[in-house]
Amino acid sequence: MATYTPPLREMQFVIHEVLNAGDAFKKMPSYAEVDVDTINQIMEEAGKFAAGVVLPLNRIGDTEGCTRNEDSSVTTPKGFKEAYQLYCESGWAALACDPEYDGQGLPQLLNTVLYEMLNSTNQAWAMYPGLSHGAYECLHEHGTPEQKKTYLKKLVSGEWTGTMCLTEPHCGTDLGMLKSKAEPKGDGTYSITGTKIFISSGDHDMAENIVHLVLARLPDAPQGTKGISLFAVPKFKPNADGSVGEGNAVSCGALEHKMGIHGNSTCVMNFDGSIGTLVGEPNRGLNAMFVMMNAARLGVGMQSLGLTEVAYQNSAAYAKERLQMRSLKGPKEPTKAADPIIVHPDVRRMLLTQRAYAEGARAFTYWVAFMIDTELNHPDAKEREAAGELVTLLTPIIKAFITDNAFTATNEGMQVFGGHGYIAEWGMEQFVRDARINMLYEGTNTIQSLDLLGRKVLGDKGAKLRKFGKIVEDFIAKEKRTKGMSEFLEPLADIAEKVSKLTKEVGMKALLNKEVVGAAAVPYLRVVGHLVYSYMFARMAKVALEKQNSGDPFYSAKLSTARFYFAKLFHETAYQIRAARSGVDSLMEMDASLF
Amino acid sequence: MATYTPPLREMQFVIHEVLNAGDAFKKMPSYAEVDVDTINQIMEEAGKFAAGVVLPLNRIGDTEGCTRNEDSSVTTPKGFKEAYQLYCESGWAALACDPEYDGQGLPQLLNTVLYEMLNSTNQAWAMYPGLSHGAYECLHEHGTPEQKKTYLKKLVSGEWTGTMCLTEPHCGTDLGMLKSKAEPKGDGTYSITGTKIFISSGDHDMAENIVHLVLARLPDAPQGTKGISLFAVPKFKPNADGSVGEGNAVSCGALEHKMGIHGNSTCVMNFDGSIGTLVGEPNRGLNAMFVMMNAARLGVGMQSLGLTEVAYQNSAAYAKERLQMRSLKGPKEPTKAADPIIVHPDVRRMLLTQRAYAEGARAFTYWVAFMIDTELNHPDAKEREAAGELVTLLTPIIKAFITDNAFTATNEGMQVFGGHGYIAEWGMEQFVRDARINMLYEGTNTIQSLDLLGRKVLGDKGAKLRKFGKIVEDFIAKEKRTKGMSEFLEPLADIAEKVSKLTKEVGMKALLNKEVVGAAAVPYLRVVGHLVYSYMFARMAKVALEKQNSGDPFYSAKLSTARFYFAKLFHETAYQIRAARSGVDSLMEMDASLF
Repeated sequence: MATYTPPLREMQFVIHEVLNAGDAFKKMPSYAEVDVDTINQIMEEAGKFAAGVVLPLNRIGDTEGCTRNEDSSVTTPKGFKEAYQLYCESGWAALACDPEYDGQGLPQLLNTVLYEMLNSTNQAWAMYPGLSHGAYECLHEHGTPEQKKTYLKKLVSGEWTGTMCLTEPHCGTDLGMLKSKAEPKGDGTYSITGTKIFISSGDHDMAENIVHLVLARLPDAPQGTKGISLFAVPKFKPNADGSVGEGNAVSCGALEHKMGIHGNSTCVMNFDGSIGTLVGEPNRGLNAMFVMMNAARLGVGMQSLGLTEVAYQNSAAYAKERLQMRSLKGPKEPTKAADPIIVHPDVRRMLLTQRAYAEGARAFTYWVAFMIDTELNHPDAKEREAAGELVTLLTPIIKAFITDNAFTATNEGMQVFGGHGYIAEWGMEQFVRDARINMLYEGTNTIQSLDLLGRKVLGDKGAKLRKFGKIVEDFIAKEKRTKGMSEFLEPLADIAEKVSKLTKEVGMKALLNKEVVGAAAVPYLRVVGHLVYSYMFARMAKVALEKQNSGDPFYSAKLSTARFYFAKLFHETAYQIRAARSGVDSLMEMDASLF
Repeated sequence: MATYTPPLREMQFVIHEVLNAGDAFKKMPSYAEVDVDTINQIMEEAGKFAAGVVLPLNRIGDTEGCTRNEDSSVTTPKGFKEAYQLYCESGWAALACDPEYDGQGLPQLLNTVLYEMLNSTNQAWAMYPGLSHGAYECLHEHGTPEQKKTYLKKLVSGEWTGTMCLTEPHCGTDLGMLKSKAEPKGDGTYSITGTKIFISSGDHDMAENIVHLVLARLPDAPQGTKGISLFAVPKFKPNADGSVGEGNAVSCGALEHKMGIHGNSTCVMNFDGSIGTLVGEPNRGLNAMFVMMNAARLGVGMQSLGLTEVAYQNSAAYAKERLQMRSLKGPKEPTKAADPIIVHPDVRRMLLTQRAYAEGARAFTYWVAFMIDTELNHPDAKEREAAGELVTLLTPIIKAFITDNAFTATNEGMQVFGGHGYIAEWGMEQFVRDARINMLYEGTNTIQSLDLLGRKVLGDKGAKLRKFGKIVEDFIAKEKRTKGMSEFLEPLADIAEKVSKLTKEVGMKALLNKEVVGAAAVPYLRVVGHLVYSYMFARMAKVALEKQNSGDPFYSAKLSTARFYFAKLFHETAYQIRAARSGVDSLMEMDASLF
């Protein structure tokens, strides 16, 4: 079975040494008391919970899956409910929530660290509290005072959980087509009718109530995405005193049989005149739901970081133990029957690919989480705005780049095990199956790429991208005389320039043919993703160079990983730039009937 | 559920129009009567069998898996046994076997076509006859007259099946470590003792007997790979009259729980003083087993081609039906609620990636199968030798390049379905899980890469590679004035030159540091794989250009796919060449303890 050691040192390196988050928090009134010790203490406790409570349920969840009972209720795998109770009792659900609703008011950054660990140890389980937190954020921002009063404390405590109900059988990406209806009852509530599919955590036995955030159409709503409204639909109607009342007409129609994340209940949800209340403005439901969708997209990135890390840990351990063949330079451990396979260059390539993708994703996601904290809490409005723009730009990259990389990484982890990797009991193939969903849900990676290139970059004529480019430029200018930095800054400067040129070229061509955006988007996101990782690795290398003579080999390992990244992974850009530039014709010339 | 239409037109194009196999067979005495009509008729029948009999068992096999009973016998999924009986009765097992043993004596090329179809429709099922055919080839080449008499007709008829027993718990790649023992009994037989793992089709209920080809050590055998011998160990001892006699001490100790190919029984096999006979010379067992291993490596390539084709067919059909969003150029089907997703450039990228990988793999594997026929049957010894060298060089590329591409392709097929791709009932995720084993078994893809670069290329100082290079050169020289060919010949010439330079560079560096080979091998194989595909696509384009005005849109589709290949997939070489050249240091510098 797979093991997990919380990578606290790696996490602390990013938080304290790269981001200096503790110092920065001092400037943000709501976080002024979040110091280094507090951060480390919480991380340690989170690690204990993830490794001790959640990890042992990972294979059980995969093997057992969820069960839909005759009364259409859903039972989660053995132990899931008890772990969730402990999670709530320990206050983890409340960690980054508003103190006004009994939250602990701690930074998003800490919640992000928590979720890395929960996802390393059990993605399927972590989706239950993860979606609830997204529902909390959506209602916190767009809920009426009444909705906040009814739902927020329950979501913060974890007594109730939340879902997001978007997809219908005939529409996923194209929400404009959705058919679920909401009829006003005349008393301020609505009767919701429709079928939603792929509803993660749609029904389960872990909490006493579930609030579904449901997209539906009001009568006479405009067609398309401008006629969609958002509703809060509880599984059980809350009583005036906040307790759980009678059942609402919401039920799980079926559970999906999936490639992975078996421990999470993926439900077909039937709304049969269920009573709900409007969230946000009529016909502006997508706007409100985007709060939850953006949170979910960042969350999916964390899922993939978590899986990358745990796949790395297990394959590295295996590579140090498994004896097979000799080093190409002659026996390294002559007293043993063979050398451990970590002596082989290609085994190291597989390990370092995972390690570099874990380190790159961690630095990237923690930095963005820190930007979210800045956006929400910095006293200077300009800083808040700048941080918000960065988060907007980088969200699709977190979702698509990290999830693609994690699929590569978990597969490399499995490959290190040879044939054993294919056998369920080692746990490696589960990481691959679980990681696969992350490229699909919360907007496929194609949709993320179109969002990045079409909306976030070309949509403002490159303004947000240039602001990010300026951050990179400033860093290069500041460090270019720092000894040892040139090997990291040269490729960074090179890719920054290439991104700038590529963006202009694609933007110009797109003026003549809109399909250029669709043809270039996926390789374009890969290129920009590498620009982000190059920047993160250069920042990490800078810290490591300063401390490489400290006697702590941690820093030389950091430099080695950064060198590996630039030597072996970075050059994917040479491919993707060519793919992005190679145009539309070869994609579109074949008549659809010939496929 | 997934559907399948045998791609007869595609197959015929390669066989008749690209390879002109019918004409070539006329020069080979044993195949002189194999004409175009015969080939087409057999292909049609094979297609009917695969689509009609084998395909319906694919999901059943995945869902049910195999069962080990209390008496340690294994039961295969419902319908597997009956389909296998029909397969044998219809003579498919005998197709490419020696008429001396009741085989039909037809070309390997036809067997290859058959296996593409069987693997498209049910890889797990196809492994039972597939391994038997490998055992047949091994015994046909290395068996004693007595062994041939005992086993070959039974394997040809399919009444008995075969396995290959190499791997032990502590060794897979490193067969030199294997511990299974063979004690001479003094009567010409041996007593075999040991545990073998990952034995595909190790036990089952589909045939009345199973012959295991088992690697074991004779007493006082030299250490390492030079002390391994090969033994034929039957499940039931054959009587003198050829009938099945008493049980041998061979049993299935356990079934593995795997990521995919659930319908195939992957067994732990216990040999407890089982009686066997020596195959080939003492201590030269690996040499004999390589016949079966090479056949298996080509077979794994066919598995991956099969899965690529069926994933393509199903995702293309889905993309033409699923309505979602509008074309970036405005509605294509305005009367419908949305356009079919095949209007979107990136959906086409995913479809064309699969299509190009299917077409490239088909041309490549059929060409190599045709070379095997040439090697075995051409009247001119020089032709036989040249063909044999090509097969030797290209075998690791078939195994690794096609299986990597198929994993990409089946994942793209799944991605076209969006969230539905993750749901088991569509069948797409099974293709991904089944395809994943192909990168692991029969020598991991790293091992294939080391075999290519270290043994096949540098091992003869590039002689075999240069012979392949000459074939490419001659083709370019012959076609360079052919109208329309330059867009295909230019990248082909370019990559041929780059492979030549890269080979020299890596070879020189390897003289100073052997780890250079280990560091470069995997990206090197990817580059040479693209050289092969560039050559195949240029050959296909040549035929298509000649016939593009024939009125048959098949040829314009061929050209479109070739253009897509060169525009979008080929440029992976820009990445992999950089990776192959980027050396050893970034892989080896980190101390193992820091991983």
